[in-house]
Amino acid sequence: MASKLIAIVAGVGPGTGAAVARKFAATYPVVLLARNPDSFESLAKEINSGGGKAVGISTDISDSNSVKSAVETIKKEFGSDVGAAAAIFNASGGFFRKPFLEVPEDVFSKSLKVSAEGGFIFSQATLPLLLKGVEQKSAHPPSLIFTGATASVKSNALMATFATGKWALRALSQSLAREFGPQGVHVSHAIIDGVIDIPRTKEWLKELGPEGKLSADGIANDYWWLHTQPRTNFTWEIDLRPAVEKW
Amino acid sequence: MASKLIAIVAGVGPGTGAAVARKFAATYPVVLLARNPDSFESLAKEINSGGGKAVGISTDISDSNSVKSAVETIKKEFGSDVGAAAAIFNASGGFFRKPFLEVPEDVFSKSLKVSAEGGFIFSQATLPLLLKGVEQKSAHPPSLIFTGATASVKSNALMATFATGKWALRALSQSLAREFGPQGVHVSHAIIDGVIDIPRTKEWLKELGPEGKLSADGIANDYWWLHTQPRTNFTWEIDLRPAVEKW
Amino acid sequence: MASKLIAIVAGVGPGTGAAVARKFAATYPVVLLARNPDSFESLAKEINSGGGKAVGISTDISDSNSVKSAVETIKKEFGSDVGAAAAIFNASGGFFRKPFLEVPEDVFSKSLKVSAEGGFIFSQATLPLLLKGVEQKSAHPPSLIFTGATASVKSNALMATFATGKWALRALSQSLAREFGPQGVHVSHAIIDGVIDIPRTKEWLKELGPEGKLSADGIANDYWWLHTQPRTNFTWEIDLRPAVEKW
Amino acid sequence: MASKLIAIVAGVGPGTGAAVARKFAATYPVVLLARNPDSFESLAKEINSGGGKAVGISTDISDSNSVKSAVETIKKEFGSDVGAAAAIFNASGGFFRKPFLEVPEDVFSKSLKVSAEGGFIFSQATLPLLLKGVEQKSAHPPSLIFTGATASVKSNALMATFATGKWALRALSQSLAREFGPQGVHVSHAIIDGVIDIPRTKEWLKELGPEGKLSADGIANDYWWLHTQPRTNFTWEIDLRPAVEKW
Repeated sequence: MASKLIAIVAGVGPGTGAAVARKFAATYPVVLLARNPDSFESLAKEINSGGGKAVGISTDISDSNSVKSAVETIKKEFGSDVGAAAAIFNASGGFFRKPFLEVPEDVFSKSLKVSAEGGFIFSQATLPLLLKGVEQKSAHPPSLIFTGATASVKSNALMATFATGKWALRALSQSLAREFGPQGVHVSHAIIDGVIDIPRTKEWLKELGPEGKLSADGIANDYWWLHTQPRTNFTWEIDLRPAVEKW
Repeated sequence: MASKLIAIVAGVGPGTGAAVARKFAATYPVVLLARNPDSFESLAKEINSGGGKAVGISTDISDSNSVKSAVETIKKEFGSDVGAAAAIFNASGGFFRKPFLEVPEDVFSKSLKVSAEGGFIFSQATLPLLLKGVEQKSAHPPSLIFTGATASVKSNALMATFATGKWALRALSQSLAREFGPQGVHVSHAIIDGVIDIPRTKEWLKELGPEGKLSADGIANDYWWLHTQPRTNFTWEIDLRPAVEKW
Repeated sequence: MASKLIAIVAGVGPGTGAAVARKFAATYPVVLLARNPDSFESLAKEINSGGGKAVGISTDISDSNSVKSAVETIKKEFGSDVGAAAAIFNASGGFFRKPFLEVPEDVFSKSLKVSAEGGFIFSQATLPLLLKGVEQKSAHPPSLIFTGATASVKSNALMATFATGKWALRALSQSLAREFGPQGVHVSHAIIDGVIDIPRTKEWLKELGPEGKLSADGIANDYWWLHTQPRTNFTWEIDLRPAVEKW
Repeated sequence: MASKLIAIVAGVGPGTGAAVARKFAATYPVVLLARNPDSFESLAKEINSGGGKAVGISTDISDSNSVKSAVETIKKEFGSDVGAAAAIFNASGGFFRKPFLEVPEDVFSKSLKVSAEGGFIFSQATLPLLLKGVEQKSAHPPSLIFTGATASVKSNALMATFATGKWALRALSQSLAREFGPQGVHVSHAIIDGVIDIPRTKEWLKELGPEGKLSADGIANDYWWLHTQPRTNFTWEIDLRPAVEKW
């Protein structure tokens, strides 16, 4: 296969991940990573039947062997010198709200493993492809984008489990921005400060009206905007929230 | 005159201000505010002769009477119920780097007067127009955008004069974002973290190569992007820097 | 008079200022600055009759001539080469909570003038005395301490007036810490995050119980602690709040 | 044994940990935790022979079974209803500075395991003892103090490994401060922003002079100060650096 640049999305679910994949699929072949094939199968079908190209790979982002194997699959599919135009880390330890002394160690540990170690593993796997994207003169500087949350900058009572992983991920993204920016890779972190409007949250925050939740497509547009910034004007961090959100 | 929405840019100079004005002039009639007509005359001519509409008004942004008089001029020109789609505050106390005990009080005072009080005066003058923009159902949520700097978040030795005004302006923008977001006005703050590539800085930072400085047009694009975010996905703050910048 | 080091407290009222003055008066002659002599007269009497030394000087901290004249009075009283061991800026623009479009310009302006310009004027007046304190080998590194608030780091809706001045003051303190630390002056900023327990606030927050408000004496103890830190271990910033405070 | 309150120090080495243990040993029996008995044996001897009481327990802070077993030893030694007046987490993943793509996964993982998961395990093990300290009306509010670093708030290029764990630990401490403050436990985080003066760093930063490094005893004094703050005046975070440090 030719060396057309690809986009890789980790943490494809019904919300941000899928919207981002659709957005980037308009320009690049996309690789969809999720543990459970249910998370990407219908999306891959939708993209492929709509004239785009999507490959779903069942992957545990917190397991480096699983991620290495995903990279092998990518190379088989797109060529061994394939470069990436974008890699988006949208995985996350589960939201978990409990009195601290009732948090099971394995829940804390697992959350950290997905958010922090998963971020590390994904970055180590995709940065070589993104650097190849730089060599191959991608139209836009190759992007590594991390999805953060309110809990990335504020660690509330009962939220230690989720926040710890999210602060760790933000630290990772800042260090990578400083190291890889000069090498031409654009590393960004998005603070999603609010509830995203997906089927599961349909009944939430109705008191805020029809614009009380973040649009997943809106987030995807913003990630695309980050992706298209030129080397002279890189943004590391944006925050995103509904106009009506209290913050 | 009809109630076509306008954009107002304060602090039009050879860099960001002019680039932002050009960008927004592609969609809106623009009002250019600067103390010295030299700062906007050729730009207004350029926009008007290119098919756009620009009105320059000589204004001291730190003087509320001068700003009130500018608003009168705007209403005469565009109608008394004119609404605004965007207001961009790009004025700033001068960059001033001196040992603290050598800073003349009037220099400190003037810097604060432009950055902090100027921001206040401009916001009080333009928010009523932006709220009219909301009523008049502007295509994009009306935007109030403030230009910040590295010194908006870091107050280095010898930089007290400039940083004090810039932190004050950032505080203003955060409070306004929280108050006016729910009313439909999108308030943003951009941290410009680096040197902007304008004639005056031509010889600076050459060691960083051709992409070592921020592009003013790039900043304008980013302001436009902020402007086009929908109500469900507002960004308060972005940072912007060249990929090669140390930070 | 001999060159005994003094402490200077600006913004002496019934709360923090008075408590700090009492605390520092146990070791140093104290100078009490406030606009209204009512604010310091009984306190000066109390300190003087208790074996300490206190001099009250009616001063408008936002007026450099008034502050210069206070320094003249200090030199007459304590000698022209008097040094300072501590200077504490506890003045503040008034707390003001209003919809932004209803804030009179002079209220905003006055708040900024006290918090930001007052901080500047006080620092320029006292830093030469603090540097003399360094020369005269004060037992503890001479301290310049600024009183901040929740609004120094968070700028809420309706709080633009107060927060703008407080962010500006924090910026000032950070720049001064960086410039004057290497010269031996310890510059600190305290974020007072809660209501202080003074007669005026007696009826507030009763639902939080007897420990729901900050103790002014506790704040004074913390300022003294900051003052006694050695050159190897300077703190720029502390936050202070009641254990029960939500934050 | 009687229910005298104890202090527990995790991460006892030649620097901060030992100094903190000595300081708190003047008032409380101290428990010294470190993986290698070499780290605490001579210190325990020194404290015990000086009239204090110290118990060293070889413990892997990142292993919950090891920590549980340490708690069993503590209860055998001090009684099953022993309360704690202080618990200090001074352990840390090793400082590691490398290009990101050269960081072995197990190094990153181990660092996170000590800094973040170790903090979690230590907090879950000691908070019940600290809450007993509250019940048993300790003279000062029981304290849980975490040692942070420059890398707790700034994540530089090449520092992803260390910073990720440190940001995670800071998040943990902030959430715990908010949850346990109202329950009477004082949770703090200290940003140690500089090099600590210990034998290993003797030759470092000589150009900064004799006060260019942090004093470990100074840090211990500051931790003690945090410990003695009353419930009305809790500090969550302090920063500490030599006066001459650039920051």
